[in-house]
Amino acid sequence: MKKVAVMGYGTIGSGVVEILEKNQEKIAKKLGYIVEVKYILDLRDFPGTPVENKIVHDFHIIENDPEISMVVEAMGGLEPAYSFVKASLKAGKHVTTSNKALVAAHGTELLAIAKEQNVNFFFEASVGGGIPIIRPMYTSLAGEEIEEITGILNGTTNYILTKMDKEGETFEAALKEAQDLGYAERNPEADVEGHDTCRKISILTALATGHEVHYEDIYTEGITKITDVDFRYADSMGTSVKLFGSSRIKDGKASAFVAPVMIGPTHPLYSVNDVYNGILVKGNMLGTAMFYGSGAGMLPTASAVIADIIEALLNDGHHVEMGWDGDRLQLESLKTSSFRYFVRIKGIAEKRLEEVKNVFGNVDVTELDHMDEFAVLTESMTEEEYEQKARELSGIRQMIRAEL
Amino acid sequence: MKKVAVMGYGTIGSGVVEILEKNQEKIAKKLGYIVEVKYILDLRDFPGTPVENKIVHDFHIIENDPEISMVVEAMGGLEPAYSFVKASLKAGKHVTTSNKALVAAHGTELLAIAKEQNVNFFFEASVGGGIPIIRPMYTSLAGEEIEEITGILNGTTNYILTKMDKEGETFEAALKEAQDLGYAERNPEADVEGHDTCRKISILTALATGHEVHYEDIYTEGITKITDVDFRYADSMGTSVKLFGSSRIKDGKASAFVAPVMIGPTHPLYSVNDVYNGILVKGNMLGTAMFYGSGAGMLPTASAVIADIIEALLNDGHHVEMGWDGDRLQLESLKTSSFRYFVRIKGIAEKRLEEVKNVFGNVDVTELDHMDEFAVLTESMTEEEYEQKARELSGIRQMIRAEL
Repeated sequence: MKKVAVMGYGTIGSGVVEILEKNQEKIAKKLGYIVEVKYILDLRDFPGTPVENKIVHDFHIIENDPEISMVVEAMGGLEPAYSFVKASLKAGKHVTTSNKALVAAHGTELLAIAKEQNVNFFFEASVGGGIPIIRPMYTSLAGEEIEEITGILNGTTNYILTKMDKEGETFEAALKEAQDLGYAERNPEADVEGHDTCRKISILTALATGHEVHYEDIYTEGITKITDVDFRYADSMGTSVKLFGSSRIKDGKASAFVAPVMIGPTHPLYSVNDVYNGILVKGNMLGTAMFYGSGAGMLPTASAVIADIIEALLNDGHHVEMGWDGDRLQLESLKTSSFRYFVRIKGIAEKRLEEVKNVFGNVDVTELDHMDEFAVLTESMTEEEYEQKARELSGIRQMIRAEL
Repeated sequence: MKKVAVMGYGTIGSGVVEILEKNQEKIAKKLGYIVEVKYILDLRDFPGTPVENKIVHDFHIIENDPEISMVVEAMGGLEPAYSFVKASLKAGKHVTTSNKALVAAHGTELLAIAKEQNVNFFFEASVGGGIPIIRPMYTSLAGEEIEEITGILNGTTNYILTKMDKEGETFEAALKEAQDLGYAERNPEADVEGHDTCRKISILTALATGHEVHYEDIYTEGITKITDVDFRYADSMGTSVKLFGSSRIKDGKASAFVAPVMIGPTHPLYSVNDVYNGILVKGNMLGTAMFYGSGAGMLPTASAVIADIIEALLNDGHHVEMGWDGDRLQLESLKTSSFRYFVRIKGIAEKRLEEVKNVFGNVDVTELDHMDEFAVLTESMTEEEYEQKARELSGIRQMIRAEL
């Protein structure tokens, strides 16, 4: 038998405790012994519940108990999660976390400590909830040169965009619905402004390149400026708009962004709807693979934590090489990236199209009934070119990058 | 440096040799040393090519060379692949194979020998080509009770069905096109009769349950009876038809089948088209996850072999627990499985519908113009019930199981 401690008895922490019990036999079959939760660190007491006797309030009990082989960090936030994870690793315990903010901010240091201490620091649940993505990247795709990672990495924004797409809702109405259903937090900024997606794509990019990525270096644009009018055009064009976290890697250099992107039905991520996540990985030999599943939710996310527990304990006494080093990856400016651009312009297409074509070159035009504007879809050009050209045109109401 | 032997210099074997060279640096970074191909076993000589000096015709050279840590089996077929793989394992060498026929027929024995010899026998490339599926199942989903696996596991038949669906082609025309493009073999039986899919779902079911599956126990129906008329109905119904390999697992029992299934746009596998494969896995905690990618092709498949090489060599001196034991899994008869049924019936709906409803109960009706028949979609019932009822009706021209 081996004993673990779970820090934080919220959604994910309680999910982990539940699965360790419910799938105990399956897990024991895999490991050859039972895994038991000895402590649950939480500020609350949970009197009268089955976990009552496991609750502790003092992290040092966990840190100083040599019986604890592994610590599950499910508290969220940077502090005290960071201090506790660091101390756990230094005490020679494996750690798994679902905390993308922690991994994005301190992953490099925590990975280095894990290596030094010959333990494992895993974080499968930090990206894509229950979708196996981090482990496949360092095992199944271990021999691949990864060329692109593009993902719908945030379930809340995908839910909102799906509602806007399929039901014609406004951003505000769809956000409210997501909040009412508990998919979005009262303060939805981390989701809708793209910060959550940014942390996740930074983790995946670091894994793919083997080098540290500073998430602040990634151009990040959320979905707050996407409107129901955009989706009326998208509908008429047979397209949709999704919030992508994406990075392209070539010759050791990478460019990355988080932004809404207009895509068509042939894109593998087109049919990833509602709270689901989808992650597309392109390797130089593999071609394109896609991973799809529940990007959040108590049990799917906890299931990813369980996979980490099993791999860490299977590798007790052995540090599994994964992650990245401290060499900071140079991210190229988005200005050098190319897209097509969906642009909504004030005025009548008939009157302004000549002028627009003089600026953007060849474009596809879409008009909706009863609108004092029209939309064009440009050919592919760099962000820098687009910006220059766009300055020459008055009345641009919206620009959405397109991969069509 | 470690040295490997590649048996069979066909599509996959040459792909493996190419990737080991092309991604040598990436692989060396992962392992800490270079992996080199020392021998290539083939009947041919390949004079004047870069591999000329590595070609051997005698397997015993490989078997008896202690410098060879690992053998890649890419010959296909049961013999001599089986004898060579067995002898390689017994000689204490790791083996990876892309040969689903070999794994489905002799996996249990080869896994047992690998364990005995403390080496690894991996076969990621035997299912889903480059798609990581086998490794995620025994690592990322290690703590899950798998409840369902449903896959589009054969690229050739998926290409044929896609052509029939999107372009209205007949089965014969689509097959010919697939043959002309090299997607289908001159003798397409293994693909179109579902045998290939059957081997693959038997491997996945054995992995999920931990017990041996006899592929002969799996009800297997190919796509040769699917016609362009079926797709005209499907089109009118907004559905499609895909060849599924599927198994459902509950309380240690499983039911499995290979058959064409009619599905709608909300099914996660609906948009898996052309030669792509998609595999849906449902776990008791994870919910539904889906893996998508190139199910065949030289480099994608070889890429999966490379992942096996890396994991085997990382675990040199250590047998990674995966696979299944020799307890034969009891598969329940398909008769107890439930589906809806798409049924084409001779006659005029107006005249026969009452009779049809008396037999099947409530149905949805679809009629096409200028046809001496109509189609109904039944409610869900067991295969046994369907068979009983269908015997009461004359003029049934087609039955396709439906998950709608």
